[in-house]
This record gives sequence, structure tokens and C-alpha cells, in this order.
Amino acid sequence: MEKRVYFDWAASAYGNPSSQHKEGHSAKNALENARERCAKVLNVPPQTLYFTSGGTESNSIALFSNLRRPGKGRIIASAGEHSSVREGMETLERMGKPTGCIAIDSAGRVTEEFLLKALNKYGDVRFVTALSVNNETGSITDIASLTNVTRKYSSGSAPIHFHCDLVQAIGKIPADIEKLDIDSASLSAHKLGGPRGIGLLYLKKPIEVFYTGGGQENGIRGGTENTDGALAFADCLEKYAFLMRNVECGITNGKSVNSVECGVTSGKSVEERYVLAKGRWKRLIDSLLGIERCRIIPGCRSSGDDSFSPFILQAAFKDIPGEVMARALDDLGFAVSTGSACSSSSPERPVLMAMGVEENLRIEGIRISQGHETTDEDIELLLGAIKEVLKFL
Amino acid sequence: MEKRVYFDWAASAYGNPSSQHKEGHSAKNALENARERCAKVLNVPPQTLYFTSGGTESNSIALFSNLRRPGKGRIIASAGEHSSVREGMETLERMGKPTGCIAIDSAGRVTEEFLLKALNKYGDVRFVTALSVNNETGSITDIASLTNVTRKYSSGSAPIHFHCDLVQAIGKIPADIEKLDIDSASLSAHKLGGPRGIGLLYLKKPIEVFYTGGGQENGIRGGTENTDGALAFADCLEKYAFLMRNVECGITNGKSVNSVECGVTSGKSVEERYVLAKGRWKRLIDSLLGIERCRIIPGCRSSGDDSFSPFILQAAFKDIPGEVMARALDDLGFAVSTGSACSSSSPERPVLMAMGVEENLRIEGIRISQGHETTDEDIELLLGAIKEVLKFL
Repeated sequence: MEKRVYFDWAASAYGNPSSQHKEGHSAKNALENARERCAKVLNVPPQTLYFTSGGTESNSIALFSNLRRPGKGRIIASAGEHSSVREGMETLERMGKPTGCIAIDSAGRVTEEFLLKALNKYGDVRFVTALSVNNETGSITDIASLTNVTRKYSSGSAPIHFHCDLVQAIGKIPADIEKLDIDSASLSAHKLGGPRGIGLLYLKKPIEVFYTGGGQENGIRGGTENTDGALAFADCLEKYAFLMRNVECGITNGKSVNSVECGVTSGKSVEERYVLAKGRWKRLIDSLLGIERCRIIPGCRSSGDDSFSPFILQAAFKDIPGEVMARALDDLGFAVSTGSACSSSSPERPVLMAMGVEENLRIEGIRISQGHETTDEDIELLLGAIKEVLKFL
Repeated sequence: MEKRVYFDWAASAYGNPSSQHKEGHSAKNALENARERCAKVLNVPPQTLYFTSGGTESNSIALFSNLRRPGKGRIIASAGEHSSVREGMETLERMGKPTGCIAIDSAGRVTEEFLLKALNKYGDVRFVTALSVNNETGSITDIASLTNVTRKYSSGSAPIHFHCDLVQAIGKIPADIEKLDIDSASLSAHKLGGPRGIGLLYLKKPIEVFYTGGGQENGIRGGTENTDGALAFADCLEKYAFLMRNVECGITNGKSVNSVECGVTSGKSVEERYVLAKGRWKRLIDSLLGIERCRIIPGCRSSGDDSFSPFILQAAFKDIPGEVMARALDDLGFAVSTGSACSSSSPERPVLMAMGVEENLRIEGIRISQGHETTDEDIELLLGAIKEVLKFL
């Protein structure tokens, strides 16, 4: 190997992807390689993917692009959004942008009807944001149907940007970004076992962003590019998120591409992992439904219901506040949560409220969420622990 | 060890510092441990440090807090700022905030006189930002003298927030944050050999931020906390950034605290490393001054001048555009840069322009920057390579 001497420490202690020397080019190549690998798994063009510091930043870049739009177009968000979007909406409102809300049904989903109602009610909507999988209940919103409604509604008039938070969807439920016909989406690595501090923003077309910083990522996200994080994100997408593209089904794109062509030669596809997760979740839900003091939230959710993610479950235990239940399970060796970690300091449950969940269930609710490493035995152990707690509380 | 079963994948594939279970608490403890270690090295209270995704984000959080301030107070920035600040100022202006510029002298520094001139000229300044070490020329601005001017100017009237970009200063030149009397500062790990994607924002007092995201880092910076990055940042600050606090000198705080008390039991202090870097830089500058076609930028910089960082040097070679020189050195195995990596796609040199550097020197300028791993031999090799290039170009 050629002996190299490095005199660009002010750019970075090691190759900065934006530098023009060999170390810079090699860092840039690594970054672009990571982007291409992510793009291949996600079935989108590499130039539509921008690395960010995580899901929260991806959401904020998309949301705050509204501050660059001329005119007074309204931004509307579903009542089920993650706190990073909810907080972003408050920021936009404070900045003088008109905002609005799309109701969710009792199952935690945005329906075509509710979206159309909001579009008609306001009449000046230019930006819609709705999350794919609700992080508290697992409710899956049919995003493709919503973008369809949005496209039809805006045809001929000013286009409406559709943003989707895919953080709880990618690698968990079969979701083909191009089929969803969204304009932008947020992804995060650490929910899939990757490192913290790296996320992706998908943009069908480049947008004008609020703040470009040093101009990196084609001016979409400023700051020295996190090459190692990007490569680790590519690793975990390849491990967990690739779709079986040779399977004809409503949610994949039907192209005859197999997992080898997809760049992934081993491991299970999202569809295969989804089926396994569904099996474990059915066992959990059926058993919980057999416990008299347990209520699944929302009540309409049954064990085989495909309109909920088999990775997230909200359940309540009569007369036991969620916090107490979570602490009791923690003491027995089980990590569950109440709300989302991102709003764990706030006792309100705005998403459950918007779903019309009654107060005692909101207080008693806990969130159980599994991952690709969860086993059948883990489910049995958890059920045993819940029964144990119920004996004493 | 207790057997644990993890059912909080929706928060993170592993303990999320904002979660309430044991995995969450242990991640939180790790994060707080990292913060305390950083605080100890930097000699500030731990609660004044907030982890961010890097220097650019730290700058943007401080700058955009102005969008939360009521009233029309003006934000002024030095003409020598990093592109992340320069771009932030344009964003603020676009959002209707009055902005302004503080001139820099021909040495690339903000002087007390220039700051006072700007304060008097505008009369409505509420926020000042000036960087400590210029990333293109190494010019060191005496920040303590500027905060002193600012405090005196604003005494009795509305307080003025003083923000300082310390990215090129920490771990390189002796800089005691508390002595500088600044309200906020930006730090980045990767300039010191730490990972990309982690930075720090120092805030003497909490501020209202533009966007809180999920409310993490006490509402200052949203997004799941990057615990591993924070620990790695603490490691590299301990390795490179601790000050010899038992030495009485104008830039340390004079407290009798030795390196052991500081939590660091081995390695060299900033002061010791600074002396070593100065020696290497003196050798480089003296040799370059002996080359007829070489001009140091700015021309006033001599080899022993303590008002420039001994980690950064801007130099020009007659009749050789900087890009050509950088490429020629790259071909010989040496990485140097022209502007900063964060603006490498822009051919303008706004900082050099503001210093009054003539056009041909702006075109011919290259930046040579060293780090703690640079050796005397590296300097000799670089000088040899430069002479080699000059034979042919």
C-alpha cells in the first residue's frame, strides 16, 4: 500500500467525504457504497436517499422544508404522529404556518375518509404527514390509499407533498417505498439493531430545506457525513429489511427480482420475518385475551388482524397503572414500556386519546414490542411473568 | 448476571436512555457518565453539556434559538465564521430576523474594536457569534476580550448572548470555556479523532430552542441519544483535551487541580501537545518562508506567532492554483485541502476575501492542517514533496 501522509486534520482526523484528496475520495466512495446498498434493499434510486442523524432529524428536515415554501399552504398531520412530528407541527405553527389535524379512527389509523375530510375542511393543504405504523399501538395505516386520495384531490391544482414516518415499518412490515407513492419518508437504524445517530431521509425529488449547514448530502443535510454509521445502516437494512421481490402481493412491487439480485444472499426476507413475528404475536395476544383482567388496546384488535404490526402491542391490566405494571415486569427481568421512549417524561397519551381510548385504559396501558431476535420462549416467559404480577397486584 | 428479556424494540433494539426499564436506566447511566467525563475535561458543570450530532447541529441549535426570542433583536456574526454558521445566518435573515456582520482584520481575527463598531452601528444586537480558531487560516480570536466588551456594552440593557464555535479549538489550543465567559459553544468529536455523528453544545444556561423533537437532552436536542458516540467523545476528550489546571496562565483558570483529579491519569495535556505542535509548525513555516514562491496567508503570520493555531496553516504557491497544488501533493501521497471540506464544492473563499487577501492568493491558497499524530518526519516529507512539486509546476 502506498505510504500516505495526512495533513487535513482540520477537516477531520480521517478522510472527510467532502474532501478532494484520496482519503476524502475513499470516504466518499464508502458513503456512496452505503447509499447504494440501502437503495437496493429499499428498491429506490440511490440519489433519493440522504443520510441524517436519525428519524427525528429526517422528520424535521421534511417538515421544516415548509418554511421555505412561498405562500400560505397548510400543513396537516395525523393525530397519531410520533412526538418528533407533533413537536415539529407546533414549531411550524409558532412560525406562522397554518397547520391542521387529520383524525384517526378508534383503531389508530388514518382512513381515506378522514384524510379527505381534512383536505376538504381546510381547502389549502400543501403538505400531509401520516405515519405508517403507529409506535404506540402498532396500528398500520394504508399509506398507498392515502397518497392515492391526495393525488386525486390535488390533480390540476397545487401539488400536495406527502410525508411518511416509516421508522416502525421498515424491516418490520413489507413496505415498498415506491409503491406507497410518497414524496418523503423517515427511517432510523437503531430500531433495527443498527447504531444510534444515523437515519435516512427518502426524497422522491430534492426539496428546498430550511437549513443546509455545510451543504453536505446535496445540500439536504449539513454536517460531516457519518460514513461509519451509514455503512452500519446498510448492513442492518441488508440483514433485516429486504423484500422478496419475486412474490406477487399487494404490498410488494411484483417485479421479478430475487434476493440474490437484491444484493442479499442470506438471511430471511421481511415477509418471512413478518410471518414469524405474526406467529409469536398471535400466541401472545391469544393468551392475553384469555386473561380476564387484560384488555388489548384498541379493543377491536384480534390476534390475527393484519392491520396491526406484529411487532407492537398495547395492552392494559385492570386496576394496575401502566407504570406500575412496567416496573413490576422490570423487577422480574422484562423490559416493556408505557408510552414511547421519546415522550416517556410526559404522562399524557395523546395518540390513545385521539383514538378515543377511555381514561383508565390510557393510564393502564403498557407497550410490548418485539424484534427479530425475540423467541417463542421469550413470549412464554413474558406471559408467565404477567400472570405472576397479576397474582400480587 | 440476571437473565433479562427485552420487549421494547419499538423504542430501540437495545436500551434507550429515555426508557424507564433497567436497560433504559443503564443506557441513561452510560450517557450521563459520558457527559460527566466530558464536563470534567472541559471544566464545566455536566448539566451545561448537551450531546448533538456534531458541530454543525450545535451551531444551528444555538443560532435558531433566536427564532424563539420575542422582539427584533439583531444577530451578528463575524466574517470569519464556518459555513454552517454563515448558512445559518442566511436562514435567519430569510426568516425575517435582522442580521449583521462583524468585520475581521487582515489577520483573520475579530478585534474588540471591530466588535464594538458593529455593536454601536446596529444598536439592537441580542446575539453575537464569533469563532475561536478560524478553520481556514488558524487565526485565533481572543474570545475572552470579546465577551468582556459584550458584557460591558450590554450592562444595564438587554443581555446579549455570545456564541462561540470551538470546533477547531478544543483539544488543540488551551481554552477554558468558563474563562471565556461565553453563553454557548459548539464542539465536534471527529476533528479530534472521535467518531462522526457526535458533537456537544455547551450552554451556560438552558435556552429555548427552535425544535425540541422528542424532548431528549432536556428538551435541547431531540432524537434518541447516541450513547456510544457520547462515550467515544468522552474517550477522545480525555485523551486529547484536558488542560493542565495547576498551571497559572492567562488561558487556564488557575485552580489547583492536577491531571489525576481531572480523571485523566495518562497522556499529555493540551498545553504539552500544543508545544509539540508549535515546534512542528515552526519548522514547517520557517522552511516554507525560505521557499521563494511560497507566501503564508496572511502575510503577517510568522513562525512563532501565538495568535495563530499551530494546527492550521494557509499557504500559497505562486502561479499554482490551490486545487492543482493539492492534487499534485495528493498524487505524491499527501492529503491537504483548499478551503474547508464543508465548502469544498464552492470555489469562493469568503473568509480570505473578508481578510482582504488578494485574488491570486485566494486562488493559490491551500490549507495544511496537522493533528496529534503528526510527526516531525511527516513535516519533513511534506516539505520535500512541496519542493518536488515546485520543480515541475
